Amino acid sequence: MHMTTVAVAGASGYAGGEVLRLLLAHPGVEIGALTGASNAGERLGTLQPHLVPLADRVLEPTDLGTLGGHDVVFLALPHGQSGEIAAQLPESTVVIDCGADFRLQDAAEWETFYGGTHAGTWPYGLPELPGQREILARATRIAVPGCYPTVSTLSLAPAVAAGIIEPDVVVVAASGTSGAGKAAKAHLLGSEIMGNASAYGVGGSHRHTPEITQNLSGLLDGDDLVRVSFTPLLVPMPRGILATCSAPLRGDVSAEEAYDVYAAAYADEPFVHLLAPGQWPQTKSVTGSNAVHLQVTVDPAARRLVAVGAVDNLAKGTGGAAVQCMNLALGLDEGLGLTTVGIAP
Amino acid sequence: MHMTTVAVAGASGYAGGEVLRLLLAHPGVEIGALTGASNAGERLGTLQPHLVPLADRVLEPTDLGTLGGHDVVFLALPHGQSGEIAAQLPESTVVIDCGADFRLQDAAEWETFYGGTHAGTWPYGLPELPGQREILARATRIAVPGCYPTVSTLSLAPAVAAGIIEPDVVVVAASGTSGAGKAAKAHLLGSEIMGNASAYGVGGSHRHTPEITQNLSGLLDGDDLVRVSFTPLLVPMPRGILATCSAPLRGDVSAEEAYDVYAAAYADEPFVHLLAPGQWPQTKSVTGSNAVHLQVTVDPAARRLVAVGAVDNLAKGTGGAAVQCMNLALGLDEGLGLTTVGIAP
Amino acid sequence: MHMTTVAVAGASGYAGGEVLRLLLAHPGVEIGALTGASNAGERLGTLQPHLVPLADRVLEPTDLGTLGGHDVVFLALPHGQSGEIAAQLPESTVVIDCGADFRLQDAAEWETFYGGTHAGTWPYGLPELPGQREILARATRIAVPGCYPTVSTLSLAPAVAAGIIEPDVVVVAASGTSGAGKAAKAHLLGSEIMGNASAYGVGGSHRHTPEITQNLSGLLDGDDLVRVSFTPLLVPMPRGILATCSAPLRGDVSAEEAYDVYAAAYADEPFVHLLAPGQWPQTKSVTGSNAVHLQVTVDPAARRLVAVGAVDNLAKGTGGAAVQCMNLALGLDEGLGLTTVGIAP
Amino acid sequence: MHMTTVAVAGASGYAGGEVLRLLLAHPGVEIGALTGASNAGERLGTLQPHLVPLADRVLEPTDLGTLGGHDVVFLALPHGQSGEIAAQLPESTVVIDCGADFRLQDAAEWETFYGGTHAGTWPYGLPELPGQREILARATRIAVPGCYPTVSTLSLAPAVAAGIIEPDVVVVAASGTSGAGKAAKAHLLGSEIMGNASAYGVGGSHRHTPEITQNLSGLLDGDDLVRVSFTPLLVPMPRGILATCSAPLRGDVSAEEAYDVYAAAYADEPFVHLLAPGQWPQTKSVTGSNAVHLQVTVDPAARRLVAVGAVDNLAKGTGGAAVQCMNLALGLDEGLGLTTVGIAP
Repeated sequence: MHMTTVAVAGASGYAGGEVLRLLLAHPGVEIGALTGASNAGERLGTLQPHLVPLADRVLEPTDLGTLGGHDVVFLALPHGQSGEIAAQLPESTVVIDCGADFRLQDAAEWETFYGGTHAGTWPYGLPELPGQREILARATRIAVPGCYPTVSTLSLAPAVAAGIIEPDVVVVAASGTSGAGKAAKAHLLGSEIMGNASAYGVGGSHRHTPEITQNLSGLLDGDDLVRVSFTPLLVPMPRGILATCSAPLRGDVSAEEAYDVYAAAYADEPFVHLLAPGQWPQTKSVTGSNAVHLQVTVDPAARRLVAVGAVDNLAKGTGGAAVQCMNLALGLDEGLGLTTVGIAP
Repeated sequence: MHMTTVAVAGASGYAGGEVLRLLLAHPGVEIGALTGASNAGERLGTLQPHLVPLADRVLEPTDLGTLGGHDVVFLALPHGQSGEIAAQLPESTVVIDCGADFRLQDAAEWETFYGGTHAGTWPYGLPELPGQREILARATRIAVPGCYPTVSTLSLAPAVAAGIIEPDVVVVAASGTSGAGKAAKAHLLGSEIMGNASAYGVGGSHRHTPEITQNLSGLLDGDDLVRVSFTPLLVPMPRGILATCSAPLRGDVSAEEAYDVYAAAYADEPFVHLLAPGQWPQTKSVTGSNAVHLQVTVDPAARRLVAVGAVDNLAKGTGGAAVQCMNLALGLDEGLGLTTVGIAP
Repeated sequence: MHMTTVAVAGASGYAGGEVLRLLLAHPGVEIGALTGASNAGERLGTLQPHLVPLADRVLEPTDLGTLGGHDVVFLALPHGQSGEIAAQLPESTVVIDCGADFRLQDAAEWETFYGGTHAGTWPYGLPELPGQREILARATRIAVPGCYPTVSTLSLAPAVAAGIIEPDVVVVAASGTSGAGKAAKAHLLGSEIMGNASAYGVGGSHRHTPEITQNLSGLLDGDDLVRVSFTPLLVPMPRGILATCSAPLRGDVSAEEAYDVYAAAYADEPFVHLLAPGQWPQTKSVTGSNAVHLQVTVDPAARRLVAVGAVDNLAKGTGGAAVQCMNLALGLDEGLGLTTVGIAP
Repeated sequence: MHMTTVAVAGASGYAGGEVLRLLLAHPGVEIGALTGASNAGERLGTLQPHLVPLADRVLEPTDLGTLGGHDVVFLALPHGQSGEIAAQLPESTVVIDCGADFRLQDAAEWETFYGGTHAGTWPYGLPELPGQREILARATRIAVPGCYPTVSTLSLAPAVAAGIIEPDVVVVAASGTSGAGKAAKAHLLGSEIMGNASAYGVGGSHRHTPEITQNLSGLLDGDDLVRVSFTPLLVPMPRGILATCSAPLRGDVSAEEAYDVYAAAYADEPFVHLLAPGQWPQTKSVTGSNAVHLQVTVDPAARRLVAVGAVDNLAKGTGGAAVQCMNLALGLDEGLGLTTVGIAP
């Protein structure tokens, strides 16, 4: 196999570390430059001690000089920093942005939720959306979805597309803490997190709200929007998101009918795993894996469909999706270097 | 102060242990008989090593011989076991049931959700409901509310009562594991729980659903019911529930107006703490305390009110409520032996 | 009761917060000035949301103007900052330092382990050491012991004092994370801590090593020193230290004899709880309490005595000891505001 | 590559699940029969939901009928159950026992610590011991080491073999809970485990004590025994062991000399990773990996060598070692299906 050369910008953070963890298990890539910002010059063995084979690598600066000349460049940078470096890389280089800069189609929305200037819109790296796999196979610029949008979208998409719910959804998603990154913040200290559950970004203010809206609305005919009430929770675990999603039923739909809609929608998806009827997802089952576990039912008294999805926010929620998208863009087997097997307990 | 004599049936479990923890800090009670079932004859120091002053106490059998002759009897027994022993205790004894046997008004609902025969309905031990404090002051039989219903009801009651939301609520409540009790079950092992979030009782099947419905519907005029979609989550912490509650707004309501409704509703409540605007609840703040922390806002895009409440499921969610009700029934200061101060971090 | 006025310098940190949590349950004090450094001017409700009764208090600057005029001042400041402010307070003010500045008798040791200039030596706030309770009753300056030294000393003192072990001890102590404070550091993030155990300060470099040595050596006749091998571990819990302590037996000592030595040593200590034979300590039993739980045995094959102690590093390990010392210095009941009852589960 | 057929007895437990997780990533094996005891007949998707590719497999009974006819049989059974089934399998079948039945050489020791009759002694599956890799390459019966002995032995072996310490070691090892298995026990409930550290098997009574003694004593000349003081701790994490090991120095040894001894001993070991000087192990770095992370130093004041090792108790501590031994016995690359890359954070 021809070895694809890859570089990772932002190799000291959680997203960059996860991309590297997965690339180390990928049979077709050669890991090239690893870059950092303030920690350029440091050993990766100090920064990411779990990546033993890369322990003696030293971080380089994030610039064209180090990132140029690779077949693939992964960007795992803070929001707002991907545009400038991406613009310097040749069009033929596959650039995969793990950040939010190129996810939203609507510049005004981007600027409202993120501030600053919208850098543009790239093909959206969720191959499980209708038609998206084909788009990604032709892409050299790919925006990896946000972690919450990945699981929320996959948990609701079949119901929205099949028209069995009203376009008025409620998502409450409990997340582990790695989604908040590795920057030191007092409210994310272990002492604060353990034994604690909290809500944040309540009332629609979380940046992933417009992305979920965009994804689900894209499944409706015409210009209608799905109305999304999204509340993220922080719960005491390092990885994983459990999204509880519900919406009013449109007409009479039984639990079996809802299950069948989901089963049909994901029958051919290698990384979406609809559990056996009656079994509900747990985040631990997907730790380290690229799988999304789903279940759906109907609450007859409340007249709502309820779907629950579990994802590893760093794997399928970020780094795994990035590798999956790379595989598609390079014409490789979509699952190379990835697994549906989680680490439990 | 006259010392009230109290007995605790089910002293080896989590609810019984929490009642005892609080009673040890209560200036007006003398702890009498402690009973168990299979562990009668064992030292409390082995079963509840945190209750140092009671370490040398030995559990007795749960029967009239041991429980009779106390001013107050707390029942912390498995569902379905409170009725028989309660019937043997004199009417003048204050009996406080921490279980579910006497919470529901509708016998058919009880039998649907719990199985077996409905034992009856006792005054419901949530003094923060309108008129309920007065009822409890005259009661000698009190049903302590379920942990999820306590926080869900208090998080939504002002909005329901004020008519600012449609009676169609969605509650997703993340709970620590102690709510599931101390009986050994493989899915509750630490190895399974840590690093894991999961949903259960999805689709309206959790036993606390009819209790939430009963509480909120009681705030409406006439016989209308509030429709409740309730999903409980298990998250990796030993104590605490964080309930995320939302409902469609009825007409134009601003976040400030919603806040004012809650501030007015709870202005005089000693144990309900509406946080400063913009600050959201976390379970750690209420660990070991009898306080409920609340916040509310409005999601203008989704046109929903969103309220979040935090409670310690064992304290205000069970044992603290039990002691608060005892204080009311005995004509004592409602807060004796209780605190609004949590243990953090 | 005359109300003692107390001030707390460093009220936004973990030690200061714990002192306040305990003072809120103390019947004889009135909480006066609360001070901070960079967060002066902020509401305590934002910084310490679990301290509900103080939610509307605002932090003041840490200076003589705010701290003067109280009967008692608690200092919960970073190392090296207590000396200057303490020197400005009148001799009659009871000053209780929760930091390390005044713990060591040997200035050279202090300077080796802490850097900077040794500020002096104050009466050491461990009343369970022989003769120490009487010293503290006359003191107006008290140095609260370190958390590791508290549990390590109490776990080994009876054996050292009785001469049943060689003065050559090994202590491995697993600690929760709050001992590392509330300052934001990447390696203390919840994402790093959960699911992780690590060692630090290995090889005798931890600052608490000379303090343990000083305490245990003080129990020997003459100038002999106890040799201490101390390794602290960080384990994923917010509070608590479990210290595993061992030393070679001096001559034939049975497990029963060792137990009897400990039972005799602590028979009258209100906060030292030797568990029933065969029951081993766990940190959860002492969460929030001022108790130390101990057990001891003999390993006949390894010819060592093994003692294990559990303490809440913030309670008896810091804030509880501070309040206990205050009670002694003021001539109050030593246990006022304190409890031996932990919060579990 | 010829596909080796493997069966796993005890596929519903933690050890069996880990063997399967690793075999699913192994390019040279075909997974055959999976067996259970009380859960024979159940879907693996229910019992081990993280093993998605095996979700529809059904457990069969553990007997010769199902286990016979495979090239390799992994036994992941409760202690005392491996002997009978192993005796029925042909000598040519590679049988790898993840349990304790065949680890000890001394029948009397086995019977003292485990009870019942000693089943025999098999080649010990720790290839990193001198000469052991060659023995395993010729073996068709292999006893996988215990998790504590693996990390304790590897942490101390170079120092024992080099004679730089006295043969009198102290090991305190903090373990996650999966080592205690999946059987439901109240003291292992998540509610009990989270926020809690405890000691057990204190005083030399843990079953892994004689195994550590056997391993280290085998490195001495003649019949001398290493004296081992071993204390296991339970800390709140699902996986991982951190072993803190120390012993008196024999003569003058510097930290650098000790490091060099370890570096030389493990220079060619693919799964033993001596960290850079000054960097200490953490369990998270080895989660899911077959690596052991080590560090060593000298405490000059205490005159002891201190070594710390980290291992994933289920991976290199059980299932990974089992696969590593299978590879050796089959003449495959020792690392097939295994990784040195952990999952973090």
